[in-house]
Amino acid sequence: MSQSAGPGSHPASESQRSRDPAFPLHHGGKIEVRPTVRIRDAEGLSLAYTPGVARISQAIASDPSLAYDLTWKSNTVLVATDGTAVLGLGDIGPVAALPVMEGKALLFKEFANVDAVPICLDTSDVDEIIETVRRIAPAYGGINLEDISAPRCFEIEERLQDVLEIPVFHDDQHGTAIVVTAALMNAAQVTGRTLADLRVVVSGAGAAGVAVTNMLLDSGIGDIAVADSRGLIEPARTDLTPVKQKLAEGTNRAGISGSIEVALEEADVFIGVSAGQIAESAIAEMAPDAIIFALANPNPEIAPNTAEKYAAIVATGRSDYPNQINNVLAFPGVFRGALDVQASRITPRMKVAAAEAIAGVVGEELAPDHIIPSPFNPRVAVEVARRVAEAAQFDGVAGVESPDRT
Amino acid sequence: MSQSAGPGSHPASESQRSRDPAFPLHHGGKIEVRPTVRIRDAEGLSLAYTPGVARISQAIASDPSLAYDLTWKSNTVLVATDGTAVLGLGDIGPVAALPVMEGKALLFKEFANVDAVPICLDTSDVDEIIETVRRIAPAYGGINLEDISAPRCFEIEERLQDVLEIPVFHDDQHGTAIVVTAALMNAAQVTGRTLADLRVVVSGAGAAGVAVTNMLLDSGIGDIAVADSRGLIEPARTDLTPVKQKLAEGTNRAGISGSIEVALEEADVFIGVSAGQIAESAIAEMAPDAIIFALANPNPEIAPNTAEKYAAIVATGRSDYPNQINNVLAFPGVFRGALDVQASRITPRMKVAAAEAIAGVVGEELAPDHIIPSPFNPRVAVEVARRVAEAAQFDGVAGVESPDRT
Repeated sequence: MSQSAGPGSHPASESQRSRDPAFPLHHGGKIEVRPTVRIRDAEGLSLAYTPGVARISQAIASDPSLAYDLTWKSNTVLVATDGTAVLGLGDIGPVAALPVMEGKALLFKEFANVDAVPICLDTSDVDEIIETVRRIAPAYGGINLEDISAPRCFEIEERLQDVLEIPVFHDDQHGTAIVVTAALMNAAQVTGRTLADLRVVVSGAGAAGVAVTNMLLDSGIGDIAVADSRGLIEPARTDLTPVKQKLAEGTNRAGISGSIEVALEEADVFIGVSAGQIAESAIAEMAPDAIIFALANPNPEIAPNTAEKYAAIVATGRSDYPNQINNVLAFPGVFRGALDVQASRITPRMKVAAAEAIAGVVGEELAPDHIIPSPFNPRVAVEVARRVAEAAQFDGVAGVESPDRT
Repeated sequence: MSQSAGPGSHPASESQRSRDPAFPLHHGGKIEVRPTVRIRDAEGLSLAYTPGVARISQAIASDPSLAYDLTWKSNTVLVATDGTAVLGLGDIGPVAALPVMEGKALLFKEFANVDAVPICLDTSDVDEIIETVRRIAPAYGGINLEDISAPRCFEIEERLQDVLEIPVFHDDQHGTAIVVTAALMNAAQVTGRTLADLRVVVSGAGAAGVAVTNMLLDSGIGDIAVADSRGLIEPARTDLTPVKQKLAEGTNRAGISGSIEVALEEADVFIGVSAGQIAESAIAEMAPDAIIFALANPNPEIAPNTAEKYAAIVATGRSDYPNQINNVLAFPGVFRGALDVQASRITPRMKVAAAEAIAGVVGEELAPDHIIPSPFNPRVAVEVARRVAEAAQFDGVAGVESPDRT
């Protein structure tokens, strides 16, 4: 989702850095590669390395599926970026994106025991990214694409999934979509409605906006209108990319055109996944019991305190307000489930299953200020993984019958 | 060095596997990616991930050299292979090579606290390998090329080093060359000679043979003749690759042609880095106090017990005989030293320094059956790293003044 280091923020000065606890925490990086077996003597060395390892390599050469048992492949994910859309910082290049990729790797391990390896690509060419990731994929069980700018991210993910038999998942799209859908499921429930009842307005048609919209359509949403920086997306517009053109065809049933404010009149839900701001007057025109997800970070599209005046439920991307919409609720469990059954891809059903699992964890604690679980609730990744693995089996994309991890 | 799972060996059957302790040891692989910082609560999450991580990314975007302090880059190595020359198994493909790459990663961490990431490339095209590794290099402090077949390995290493400002090191070449040179330094000393006194015959002109020969020439060896499977390499031969042509110009001062047996007459040293066998009668013709390194694995070019009848010193690649020539003596310390000073490449002086360090660790224990230290001697990697770092500074390829690790 759209996040930035702050409006007009500049790189920290030496003295700012010395006061910022994030800097010492990052000294030497946040992850390491460790042995899972100990080599204490020549005999151990001769099993884990030559000559013993040759017997393992030979076994895999004659039956490549043995790699899932005899290497780390079944538990690993590449976290690949080209550094073109890093948080709210934009195109800062591959090396500057590395701390974010390390952060994801840390969370993958911490929340779901998935081994994740950061890859920062020194190219932003679509064909080169696809070819490069394809060529380095054999040692890995999944690909998490990260912080790649729209609309390139759509083509890269789709074409990469076409050439690989392991899941390819652009988290800025689907991680966000899963958590937003989970939150909206619970928000509908707590306000006595269903998804089919809701008329939704999405602000932002980048990676997150497109994926949220598509997932809500898959989940049976009533109607949905999407706006980019030039206004509402509808078929009459001549300035649309192919991805937005497709969006125009499947959304905005009422055929409204113009600014987002027009669509917000009597809308049930506002979902902001852009850096733009929304006027209080527009929010005031929404339907009763409105639901507002103002997810821009650190500055929500509308101040939560203002939104609360008009809405039954308010969620943000921030940890200092209730109802934090955070991708970390989704990606660890999604890949845990996919890896557990050696899934070949992440299907729409697997994403919906993940959203239902996240929503379900809230259980009896469901309340207007508690529509989404804490990222530190240990049941989240477990439930997401279980439901994702089941959905993979239902969809016939699982390579093995049942998880060999729980 | 040349190693195989055994002559005419076949993939293990189910029942063989159940008796082979290498298989349970490899269950789930041998390495994992772990956090080095713990995230216990929302505050930790907001420092290691969003929004705090954005400040780190922004700092690196304005000063990329900060990546050495604020990410894992300064401590990491990619271990990249295309699976075309895996141990003695040959071209078994990228996935089957993974257990060997994991083994290297394990040893990198265990012996030198270097974080190493396996990359198994789904291409064997020279240009594609170079481009792919170049594109994924930004997050890493060095590149260890591994098990790439000759002569492609020479061009790949050279061209990749030309386009990257981090060390590129093909271990099958230089790791082997460093350890062989170290062993030969001590073998010369224990038999009362210097490298300049020695006339050497090398069997094998692949990755290891070429690198051993070049390094011994750099180290001032007396004379050296190299044989491939068609006989001694000399300028009159018309079947030589460019790399062997260059070898022909710098070696074989005596201008001998024909079979390797001819060159062995009165030779001081035999170094076998091929799978070929050498007749006892040829060994019998060597000079007094001969030195024999029969490094093919698991079947040395001549049986150690036979070699001992004619030689003052015998070394093999095996752990069950004295004087094991094992690359693990070199690569962990070489990269530790290079990373410690942010070296941009591994120079010939750094390799010689590594060889001298390995030889020096033996110290007063030097004896005909102890010319090389045990891989488990903890001083090896420390001394190699120290000497390699010093040599990098001497050669002006160090990025920082002094190691920030010891």
